[in-house]
Amino acid sequence: MLGEHAPWLALSRVKGLGCVSFKRLIAHFGDPTRALAAAPSELAAIEGLQRDAIDGIVGFTQWAEVDSDLQRIRSAGITLVRYTDANYPARLRTIADPPPLLYVKGALTAADDKAVAIVGSRSASDYGRRVARDLARGLASFGFTVVSGMARGIDGMAHETALNCHGRTIAVLGSGVERAYPPEHERLYQRIAEQGAVISELPMGTKPLAFNFPARNRLISGVSLGVVVVEATEKSGSLITASLAVDQGREVFAVPGEVGSSRSRGAHRLIRQGAKLVETVDDIIEEIAPQLARLSGGDGKTDARQLPQNSSAAAQKVFALLQQRSLQIDEIIENSGLVSAQVLGILLDLELQGYLRQLPGKVYTIET
Amino acid sequence: MLGEHAPWLALSRVKGLGCVSFKRLIAHFGDPTRALAAAPSELAAIEGLQRDAIDGIVGFTQWAEVDSDLQRIRSAGITLVRYTDANYPARLRTIADPPPLLYVKGALTAADDKAVAIVGSRSASDYGRRVARDLARGLASFGFTVVSGMARGIDGMAHETALNCHGRTIAVLGSGVERAYPPEHERLYQRIAEQGAVISELPMGTKPLAFNFPARNRLISGVSLGVVVVEATEKSGSLITASLAVDQGREVFAVPGEVGSSRSRGAHRLIRQGAKLVETVDDIIEEIAPQLARLSGGDGKTDARQLPQNSSAAAQKVFALLQQRSLQIDEIIENSGLVSAQVLGILLDLELQGYLRQLPGKVYTIET
Repeated sequence: MLGEHAPWLALSRVKGLGCVSFKRLIAHFGDPTRALAAAPSELAAIEGLQRDAIDGIVGFTQWAEVDSDLQRIRSAGITLVRYTDANYPARLRTIADPPPLLYVKGALTAADDKAVAIVGSRSASDYGRRVARDLARGLASFGFTVVSGMARGIDGMAHETALNCHGRTIAVLGSGVERAYPPEHERLYQRIAEQGAVISELPMGTKPLAFNFPARNRLISGVSLGVVVVEATEKSGSLITASLAVDQGREVFAVPGEVGSSRSRGAHRLIRQGAKLVETVDDIIEEIAPQLARLSGGDGKTDARQLPQNSSAAAQKVFALLQQRSLQIDEIIENSGLVSAQVLGILLDLELQGYLRQLPGKVYTIET
Repeated sequence: MLGEHAPWLALSRVKGLGCVSFKRLIAHFGDPTRALAAAPSELAAIEGLQRDAIDGIVGFTQWAEVDSDLQRIRSAGITLVRYTDANYPARLRTIADPPPLLYVKGALTAADDKAVAIVGSRSASDYGRRVARDLARGLASFGFTVVSGMARGIDGMAHETALNCHGRTIAVLGSGVERAYPPEHERLYQRIAEQGAVISELPMGTKPLAFNFPARNRLISGVSLGVVVVEATEKSGSLITASLAVDQGREVFAVPGEVGSSRSRGAHRLIRQGAKLVETVDDIIEEIAPQLARLSGGDGKTDARQLPQNSSAAAQKVFALLQQRSLQIDEIIENSGLVSAQVLGILLDLELQGYLRQLPGKVYTIET
C-alpha cells in the first residue's frame, strides 16, 4: 500500500522543489507519477518551477533510496498522508505552502478539523503552566483537538492535559517524526501517538535543528482555527507562530500576565497588536464561533425544528431530549447517558448552528 | 476677595440646578449676580432650565447661609475656583457637565494641564501597588501631574509616589474637601495640599456617601489626558471612571495581570474593549503624545532652530546647551543646573514639539 507513496517520496527528494512548486505540480499533473514522466518542456511551462527542480525531476534516479525510505517508514509504524488524501488536514491544505507529504505517527481524524493550538515558552512559569492546563482542559472538554509543538514547558503541558482529559492532541515536530524531541518527552510522544498524532513534514531522521522550527511553526497554526500564546518572551518562537497565524488568517489569542515578567512581554505585545486577550476558554470559543459554525455547515438559517439527517446519533439524542422541555446541563448529561465531554461538545455545536439557545444557569432550550 | 464668590455659592444652593444648567446660566448671563437678578421670563428662555430651579433663583433668600459657607471656607483654608477663573482646569471645562465651582485645598497650576490619572482597587495586591508606584514615578519624572481619588490601595500609592518623586498630584474627593477621606489618609491629604491640590465639587461638610462617587469619578477623568486602571474587579468604580473617560474622549489605559486574579478581570475587560495595554510609562506617553504636542502648541512644523518667545527660561537654557552640541541626558542635567525631573519634562516637551530628537543612549540633539 505504501508503494503508491513512492513517487511522492521521489519528488520530495528533488532539490529546489519547494512546497509551493510541489503543489503546482500536483495541480497540473494530478499525480507525481505523471510529473516524473513529463517532458522537460511541459515542466518548464509550470509557473515558478526552477531549472534545478526540473532537472531533478527529469533525471530522477534515486529509486533505491526511496525504497529504503519506505522500509524505514513502514518499520517505524509511520503513516504518510499526502496533500491529496482525504485525511490530510483540510485547513492545512488552504495555506500558501502546504507540505505535500505529512509523516504521521498515530492518526489524523475528521475531529481534528476542530483544532486550536496552544504554544508558549519552554521555560514556562508555574503561572503559565497553570493557564496552559486550564485552557487545554477547556478546549478538550468542548471537543477541540489541542495542537502544539511538543516542546518543554507550555507545549508539553498543553498536550499532556488534553491527553489526561481524554481529548485529541496533535504534536507538530521540527524533526523526523520517528523520534521524540526533546528526548524527555518520550513517554508523552507515545501517548500522543496513541491518542492523537505526532506529525512532521520533514523526512525520517531529520535532526531537530533550530533552522527547522520556524517552518514547523507554520504547520502548528496551519492545522488550527486559532493559536493561543500563553507565555512568550520578546524573542520567542511563539511570536513567529503568531505572526504566521495572522498571515494564514487564523485567530491569534494571547494570555496576559504580570507587567515586569519578561515571559509575558511577548503576549502583551501581541495584544497591543490586536491579538484577543484570553482569560478562559470561553474567550477563545466566542472568537472562533463563526468559523465553527461554517465548519458544522450551519448558516443560522437552518430549520430549527429538526436536525439534519447526517447528525450523529448522540446529537439526535440530545436534541430529542430538549424537544420535550428545556433542561439544565447536568440533566442533559444524566438523561442522555452520554459522557459530559461529548454532551458539552454537542451542545456547543448545536448552539453555534442555531438549533439551541443557552439560558442563564446553563439551561438549554430549542431555538425557535 | 471671597465675597465675589457669594453669588456662585448662592446658585449652587439652588435645588434642581445641575452642572449643565449652571453652565448655560453662566454662558447666558456671564455672571451669577445677573442671573440672580434676572426676570423669570428671561430665565425660562434658557434651554433645559427646570421650573424649580427658576423658582429657586428668583426667590433666593439664603444669603445668611452663603455667608456662613464663606466663613467656613475661609477658616478651613479652602480656595474656591470658579468655572470662569483662569486657574480652573482647562480640560475639565470641556466636559459636558463641568462643576461650576471647585473647592480646592492646595493650589491648581498651569502644570496640571499635563495630568494623567491612575486609579484602581482599594484592596490592591502587592503587584498592583508595585505597578502603580512604577507608573506614578514615571509620570512624575516626566513632569505629569498624577490624578487620583485618594482612596486606599492604588489611589493612595499613586499620590504618595508622585509626592515622593517631587511631582505634582491632585486628589479628587467624593466628599467635602475640608476633611481627609479615608481618615487614615490624613497625613497624605496634608502632603497633597502642600504639593498639589485636593479638590471636590461638593459643598463643605458633604459626607463620603457611596452615592457621590460616580459623579466624582467624572472629575478624575475630566481633568486628565488619560486614565490608567491598575487593578479593578469587575464591579470596580474604576471601570466607571474608565467608561466616563471614554465618553469624555480621554485615553483609557489598563494594566494586565494574571488570569484568574479577580483584581485583574476589570482591566482585562477594558483591554478587550479597546483600552491600551500598559506595561511602562512609555506606553502611556506614546498614546497621549499627539495631545501633548497640541498642549505645547507644537504642530510639527515649528521652526526647529529656535524656541518660541514664550518658552520657559529653563527650556531656553536646555535648548541653548543642545545648540552647542548633542548631549547625553546626565550631561544636560549637570550643565543646566536644573533638577532632573524638570529636565526630563523639558526634553519630553521639546521632543514632542519636534525641536529635539532622542538618539540611542539617551543622547539628545536638535532636530534640523
